[in-house]
Amino acid sequence: MNQRRWRRTEGGWAAAAMLAALMLSEAPTTPAAAADAAPGARPLTTAEVLAASQPADWRSLDPQRTLYLELPAGRVIIELAPAFAPHHVENVVALAREQYFDGLAIMRAQDNYVVQWGDADGKKPLKAAQRTLAAEFERPLRGLSFTRLTDPDTYAPVVGFLDGFPVAADPQIGRAWLVHCYGMVGAGRDNDVDSGGGTELYVVIGQAPRHLDRNVTLLGRVVRGMELLSVMPRGSGALGFYESATERTPLRSLRVAADVPAAERTPLEVLRTDTPVFAAYVEARRNRHEEWFKVPAGRVDVCNIPLPVRPAANAK
Amino acid sequence: MNQRRWRRTEGGWAAAAMLAALMLSEAPTTPAAAADAAPGARPLTTAEVLAASQPADWRSLDPQRTLYLELPAGRVIIELAPAFAPHHVENVVALAREQYFDGLAIMRAQDNYVVQWGDADGKKPLKAAQRTLAAEFERPLRGLSFTRLTDPDTYAPVVGFLDGFPVAADPQIGRAWLVHCYGMVGAGRDNDVDSGGGTELYVVIGQAPRHLDRNVTLLGRVVRGMELLSVMPRGSGALGFYESATERTPLRSLRVAADVPAAERTPLEVLRTDTPVFAAYVEARRNRHEEWFKVPAGRVDVCNIPLPVRPAANAK
Repeated sequence: MNQRRWRRTEGGWAAAAMLAALMLSEAPTTPAAAADAAPGARPLTTAEVLAASQPADWRSLDPQRTLYLELPAGRVIIELAPAFAPHHVENVVALAREQYFDGLAIMRAQDNYVVQWGDADGKKPLKAAQRTLAAEFERPLRGLSFTRLTDPDTYAPVVGFLDGFPVAADPQIGRAWLVHCYGMVGAGRDNDVDSGGGTELYVVIGQAPRHLDRNVTLLGRVVRGMELLSVMPRGSGALGFYESATERTPLRSLRVAADVPAAERTPLEVLRTDTPVFAAYVEARRNRHEEWFKVPAGRVDVCNIPLPVRPAANAK
Repeated sequence: MNQRRWRRTEGGWAAAAMLAALMLSEAPTTPAAAADAAPGARPLTTAEVLAASQPADWRSLDPQRTLYLELPAGRVIIELAPAFAPHHVENVVALAREQYFDGLAIMRAQDNYVVQWGDADGKKPLKAAQRTLAAEFERPLRGLSFTRLTDPDTYAPVVGFLDGFPVAADPQIGRAWLVHCYGMVGAGRDNDVDSGGGTELYVVIGQAPRHLDRNVTLLGRVVRGMELLSVMPRGSGALGFYESATERTPLRSLRVAADVPAAERTPLEVLRTDTPVFAAYVEARRNRHEEWFKVPAGRVDVCNIPLPVRPAANAK
């Protein structure tokens, strides 16, 4: 019985009414407004929200914009974010295609912060890829239609989701940027803002380090396999760097999914973030009405909405 | 050189002016107001803030309110929070004193959420300790003088620190509660609010699950050894429970520090959270002015202020 404790924690209910609650671009809805749309509807669990979803509520990962990081323990799958870091994305794809990362290693694991991999010796030559690129910390807000949360955020005037990525924006200055939530992947850099480029990559493994937003180029996020990265033994050196090479975990390879034989791919779908179903999912995270919960939070942090991922419907 | 990337990320500077910035109870200061106190002062790094601290800025952990969880990989040190969960704290102390946890195991590790330990079989008998207690989700705000942050919070009207613990409050209803930040320790329960008691304990290992605030009794926090818990292999069962007993990590023991021979203790000090030095530390986390940072965040989340811990000054 004890083992069953907490089992319901991750259930979460969504008001069916919330299925009508679009939270689009500049027209955020409130839970109350959404509830008005279908008074009296029975709350659904998150599982029911997803079960009631249609194929069009999901999208397949684009193999040209998906990376497979092969570790000794298994495959980590990363979705790239060309809408925010087009040049870094192109460069990381080029690095993967020239097999730059193969045989390099995870060389840093700082508790509650990041795991980082790359060339610890800084000697591996490049072919067509660039070592450094101009920073892509933010981009114009204009032209982006993202799903905006109604919830207040400590760090940014506006937060929400675009194509599955957590984003923030400041309408006053017309800028938008990716947010350092758990699982986000960025390009390490030196002090010069333009000293990154993707030859060193890090992933967030703890509390969202939002102070890094707009200070370093984010270029993607882990959609599967975080549990392989988050358990890396923490480094005992400064900032979690390993003090000896033997502590590092080798990278078998990093490949663009499109370059992997079809039979060896991992076809995944992620929930679209511009649909009524996603709005219902967010509401289920915001207010949990299962029996276990006694005080619904009423609000939700942009980094506390993990995006649903499932095997592609047409996958074997 | 690549290995040095990111090394300065954790530096952080604090304006010396901030040393004068008390953020007490009902009188939050703003960074601007604090800066006015000493215009032109050279910013200090967080290390410099701490180096300039006096012995009175630190406090030793009370061995009667400190637990040592002995894992095969080493010691995890937990500070208890009797101001918020007095009965749960007393009960966990009683459980430790009757050696309830010795030989039990970590039976759950859910990625980006919690690690949990206790009696997987639910059969271990109790002596003087209780199996269940009335919930201690929150307490009266009256009588608490905590260090309040000026920063907006997604989940609560007011957040800050009390005796090193992250706290939230709602002055309108006069209630205060502990916050589910990284490293916080709570008592698992079943659906009944009064079904917990401390025989199963969990620790937060990911993004702050703030939706659990006021839904489960928090009773302490890990002050050292999180890196031993956060790397536990994630369970493949529902909610991260291990599917076989062989996957569990055994607990060698859980002891009250006061019951451990003095020579075997780990004397620690933590930074007080009601001092100008702490205010300066918070400001250094809020606005980082090292060369590496280009855009200071200007704000900080209550769960993004890890509390400084050091060996006790008089420790051997």
